[in-house]
Amino acid sequence: MPEFRKDPVNGRWVIIATDRGRRPADFSRQQVIPKGDRFCPFCPGNEQKTPPEVLAYRQSGGPNEPGWTLRVVPNKFPALRVEGDFDRQGEGLYDKMNGIGAHEVIIEAPEHQVTLGEMPEKRAEDIFWAIRDRFLDLKKDRRMRYILAFKNHGEAAGATLEHSHSQLIALPVMPRRVQEELEGAKRYYDLKERCIFCDIVRQELSTGSRVVLETEQFVAICPYAARFPFEVWVLPRRHFSHFEDSDIPTFHNLGWVMPVLVREIDKVLERPAYNLMIHTAPLQESALPYYHWHMELIPKLTKVAGFEWGTGFYINPTPPEESAKFLREAGLT
Amino acid sequence: MPEFRKDPVNGRWVIIATDRGRRPADFSRQQVIPKGDRFCPFCPGNEQKTPPEVLAYRQSGGPNEPGWTLRVVPNKFPALRVEGDFDRQGEGLYDKMNGIGAHEVIIEAPEHQVTLGEMPEKRAEDIFWAIRDRFLDLKKDRRMRYILAFKNHGEAAGATLEHSHSQLIALPVMPRRVQEELEGAKRYYDLKERCIFCDIVRQELSTGSRVVLETEQFVAICPYAARFPFEVWVLPRRHFSHFEDSDIPTFHNLGWVMPVLVREIDKVLERPAYNLMIHTAPLQESALPYYHWHMELIPKLTKVAGFEWGTGFYINPTPPEESAKFLREAGLT
Repeated sequence: MPEFRKDPVNGRWVIIATDRGRRPADFSRQQVIPKGDRFCPFCPGNEQKTPPEVLAYRQSGGPNEPGWTLRVVPNKFPALRVEGDFDRQGEGLYDKMNGIGAHEVIIEAPEHQVTLGEMPEKRAEDIFWAIRDRFLDLKKDRRMRYILAFKNHGEAAGATLEHSHSQLIALPVMPRRVQEELEGAKRYYDLKERCIFCDIVRQELSTGSRVVLETEQFVAICPYAARFPFEVWVLPRRHFSHFEDSDIPTFHNLGWVMPVLVREIDKVLERPAYNLMIHTAPLQESALPYYHWHMELIPKLTKVAGFEWGTGFYINPTPPEESAKFLREAGLT
Repeated sequence: MPEFRKDPVNGRWVIIATDRGRRPADFSRQQVIPKGDRFCPFCPGNEQKTPPEVLAYRQSGGPNEPGWTLRVVPNKFPALRVEGDFDRQGEGLYDKMNGIGAHEVIIEAPEHQVTLGEMPEKRAEDIFWAIRDRFLDLKKDRRMRYILAFKNHGEAAGATLEHSHSQLIALPVMPRRVQEELEGAKRYYDLKERCIFCDIVRQELSTGSRVVLETEQFVAICPYAARFPFEVWVLPRRHFSHFEDSDIPTFHNLGWVMPVLVREIDKVLERPAYNLMIHTAPLQESALPYYHWHMELIPKLTKVAGFEWGTGFYINPTPPEESAKFLREAGLT
């Protein structure tokens, strides 16, 4: 019997097709293997092909020269720009404003073909420190209300360049999906006086069936109302509402957890394309007792179709308990 | 300068990358051309390969025999089922219930390779009459609160069979995206005492720049805050909140409008995959002054990536004014 399951945070219903139970081999997909056969503006030596860097971790060389291990640059074709005013206007019954914001690219490694799953711990950790550094800097612009840090890995997941990179987009308006998550978490807190994500961590650890991996700092689970097969959430055990306010052990452990998780995904699903997103609290708010930052990883296995576009409902053909079991049994921890 | 535009109905902000302005040839995509080289359970003679029909329009033959021009059958692998009880349960902090609902397939034509764009007027019209017939029948089950009728055309849009078909899914819960649209429309009505969709039709006809085509009964536009390149909304000029309550001239004209629109899309975008959805009022409500049924067509040209998943925000690289111009200039009306 198919099942409706409700996401406890934002109230989204999902249809879990428990009797279809599609397994990893049932999904057709392209393997993501960097080829490196074209000119790459992210490779060392090509620093002049990107806008000047806003941050770099380097072992040698000066700004915009080789010698870096990680580099952050403004997107050459930004969706939003920092300069200018909002200039809010109406057009009859419509509303618009200028696209003020920031759009940056984190070039995660100098090596063209290395992926997040293959990175040494310290280098993977650095990606998250770099994101934190950029959050702290962009936060100074009081117009910016939210930053989404995300990674599109592979063409099917929307990546246009194969050299390992993440992006961040700083927005002057609160995205509605984030607002919904915040409101849902707040409603729960108002009722229970507990953080819903802390409760999820506790319940998942005690149930065990949806746990993918756990460390001293993190728990990775396939969420109860997963929208997609093999969707994974990575939750810090310690409560921080803001990603950028996490403590050193948390950042340090991310450098171990994320490559291991990606290797499990790569092993079970044969190097699929995926999207990875950091869900965090609004930039200008102080620490919130009811919200808890976390990451969401979505392997690109199914197509979003008319039903999903029309309703915001998702049909997930693989129960999260099965997804978690496959990933646990990858045997990498 | 990129622009934020707000959807006046549901309040969703969209980033319109006005300075990139991607043109039809800039999108890589697979052409959808039915090949007909495999066994097809939807072709005449294979009626026994689907569950027994719940509706058919036929020129000859008996139930589940050849001779039909259109056939509606339950989905062989339904996401939801009609039989049983909800059996609502908690699992710690989570909520679930049985997947009660209906999932049906409208086989739109006996000919394997004909597409909606190629159908004669009367046959295209019949698709919408069939959807209406099924709405009226499923409405009798008072548990059903909403029906989404949709079409996935082409593999990239989620179609698994190439023989022209639509689907409908009847749900016992109100989808959140539909609820948002209803609430947004109601807020506008409470403020202005006018239907926002009627106002959109009026404003678009007077502006003209986003109009794709117009007839006595319909206006097709690229919406002001389009999420996707070449997204098209088809709005009836007469106000009906419920698709199934539309009058005869409206149904009649759909048989002309939809094939023409699809031919324009096919010509400009070289037969892309697309999703088509009917947005309509909740099944068990009586006529609403503030809501107005319409269709949304989304050609599958871009990939939904991490930013969209993380925020619900969309970045549209083609302004709707440009999309509409390309479609108008296809010269099919």
